[in-house]
Amino acid sequence: LVMLKDKFVGFFKNVWQLGVDDPRKVIHAFKVGLALALVTLFYYTRPLYEGVGGTAMWAVMTVVVVFEYTVGGCFYKGFNRATATVTAGFIALGVHWIAHQSGKQFEPVILSSSVFLLASAATFSRFVPTIKTKFDYGITIFILTFSLVAVSGYRVDELFQMAQQRISTIAVGIFICLCVCIMIRPVWAGQELHLLIVRNMEKLATSLEGCIEEYFEEDLNSEKERSQKSLGYKAVLNSKASEESQANLARWEPRHGQFGFRHPWSEYLKVGISMRYTAYCIETLNGCINSDIQASNSVKECLSDECKKLVTQCAMVLKELSKSIKEMAQSSSLDLLVGNMNMAVQDLQDALRSLPSQLQEEAQVQNVATMPLMEVLPVITVASLLTEISVRIEGVMDA
Amino acid sequence: LVMLKDKFVGFFKNVWQLGVDDPRKVIHAFKVGLALALVTLFYYTRPLYEGVGGTAMWAVMTVVVVFEYTVGGCFYKGFNRATATVTAGFIALGVHWIAHQSGKQFEPVILSSSVFLLASAATFSRFVPTIKTKFDYGITIFILTFSLVAVSGYRVDELFQMAQQRISTIAVGIFICLCVCIMIRPVWAGQELHLLIVRNMEKLATSLEGCIEEYFEEDLNSEKERSQKSLGYKAVLNSKASEESQANLARWEPRHGQFGFRHPWSEYLKVGISMRYTAYCIETLNGCINSDIQASNSVKECLSDECKKLVTQCAMVLKELSKSIKEMAQSSSLDLLVGNMNMAVQDLQDALRSLPSQLQEEAQVQNVATMPLMEVLPVITVASLLTEISVRIEGVMDA
Repeated sequence: LVMLKDKFVGFFKNVWQLGVDDPRKVIHAFKVGLALALVTLFYYTRPLYEGVGGTAMWAVMTVVVVFEYTVGGCFYKGFNRATATVTAGFIALGVHWIAHQSGKQFEPVILSSSVFLLASAATFSRFVPTIKTKFDYGITIFILTFSLVAVSGYRVDELFQMAQQRISTIAVGIFICLCVCIMIRPVWAGQELHLLIVRNMEKLATSLEGCIEEYFEEDLNSEKERSQKSLGYKAVLNSKASEESQANLARWEPRHGQFGFRHPWSEYLKVGISMRYTAYCIETLNGCINSDIQASNSVKECLSDECKKLVTQCAMVLKELSKSIKEMAQSSSLDLLVGNMNMAVQDLQDALRSLPSQLQEEAQVQNVATMPLMEVLPVITVASLLTEISVRIEGVMDA
Repeated sequence: LVMLKDKFVGFFKNVWQLGVDDPRKVIHAFKVGLALALVTLFYYTRPLYEGVGGTAMWAVMTVVVVFEYTVGGCFYKGFNRATATVTAGFIALGVHWIAHQSGKQFEPVILSSSVFLLASAATFSRFVPTIKTKFDYGITIFILTFSLVAVSGYRVDELFQMAQQRISTIAVGIFICLCVCIMIRPVWAGQELHLLIVRNMEKLATSLEGCIEEYFEEDLNSEKERSQKSLGYKAVLNSKASEESQANLARWEPRHGQFGFRHPWSEYLKVGISMRYTAYCIETLNGCINSDIQASNSVKECLSDECKKLVTQCAMVLKELSKSIKEMAQSSSLDLLVGNMNMAVQDLQDALRSLPSQLQEEAQVQNVATMPLMEVLPVITVASLLTEISVRIEGVMDA
């Protein structure tokens, strides 16, 4: 029983920590509550209530399913819901009219088969990638509305009036959603994406530095902090899904802050992809550093200066890049830094070239052990290649 | 106009191709249609219809939102929907009773504030990771049902009867969903996951082979086919999200085929993670192979035999592993193959050790150029490390 209590307390501590770490999540929760309370109040106080009756629930339902964490998500779902409801409603009315004309006997058959066909077609269309990213939710609503109208229409005669009421209630729901979502501490998917990219780039820089530091310095004081630092690249590896969904939602957002309506969100994705490629390299590098086969210290020392210099340059380029993306301004010192970095690459290559003869003078067999170190070079080459790419992308973005 | 038509035709060709490539998607679409048609027919033919009226729509809605591509998804959503509806209904009834007791004036206030509080709490709980993976959908439904009952209850007096009707219709909807989903060509999330892992492992093997082949052979005939082969590892890089969601859904599935109820799905995730680590290495290797700095042919030749042998061994281990996972049987030859692979690693290391002296005899400066080749070694070390891990995991899985 005590164990159970401990578990419970631990769980609540975790949850509390979650709220402290990101107060926006708590605010979001209250926003949902507020939107729902507003809708319920709206329908309590309206004298029209008696007439609307069952359709009031549509407003509630709309708020529950449309309200998303980001403004982009809200717009996306709201737009999808509205258009899907309207189109499905019209098609259903048309089918209904046809079914009605063909007599009592055929009516159920025609309606059921139309439901079958349209639902199948719509479901299949969800597998098409372009439709999936943009209208996935809309299609669910389309199927739902169509089947509902087809079924309920069998008895209810005032279909048109009902459709009108339903659309108006959904509009009210969406309106309240958007108001609450935008007015009170909005979370913009675009801004999130922007910050994510900037943060990830900084993480790359620090973890690259951290790795090399760890490799060249033997004394492992403050080990934990350092490994924390050098593991930042893992976040980059796993951020693909969130980047993509945010870029998707950001497209739906109106102008806000520094971001225009047609901000090139896809450029962010490209930057994200090149960052992931760098992160793969760092991952491999990290593997080499922690592998069993290690270079002897003498070999390490031969190259340690050049390696450290190069990594510092790489990190500086990355940090400058992240700064310039953050401020969305072409950085003037970036070209210089990239030049420095390329020079550092040259230096390292020279050092490597003179290494064999140097080693020959010392001992022979330990040469094998240089490999983990040499492995640094390709990584760095790729990193420089990447920064080249990033520079180009960045030029495109701020054009 | 012709361009538009071309685009249209192209789009339809794409869609058609999608259907031909994976006929199960088409079948799924028809299954959704069938389930919906069944529900509508069910409600047309029942004499009870007049009485149920509005609640029939709940069955339709349930089918639309619960029906998922995989059986696991169906179970997950069905279970979440059922429990969430029942609990939310009960809590709402309780709140309602309290509100009713406190008089006409306070009723709207109490109801609205309870909606506000509960919706906020529930929304916030969706951010907790463990709840999110298992009950995300259930919480949406919980909020929905609770608000609906709270709102509608203001007027309707026969709340209990309504609740009972609603639960029964939802039960009918879920029942039809599960029947159609399981009876007609079911798609098991577990099996999908199993196949995905096996396929990815084979891809890793072929792309590892492809890379090395590409590197050591100069003649670039059948270039396209080869690069296709060597790029298979990219699929492994990007399969994280689908692996995780499938493992999540697989947990909800009952016993089927070779898979028991408590099949260790999390082991698949571990295998997936180690495969992704290997894929990162191959990615880096690929970058080195295509980089500007290339080894001279003489250096390449020195090591080509050993490298090829090692890669062949690695690929054999991976293929044997994938075969044994596929058949879910401990493979007897696996230990032997791993032994061979480790021997090949040793051979390559010996070859590298003798390389400097060999090169000294030939020329001097070109030594720098060996790096891309040497980079192969760490990769392979990691690969051997990985296979060790995989072997262990596999032992766990088939225990």
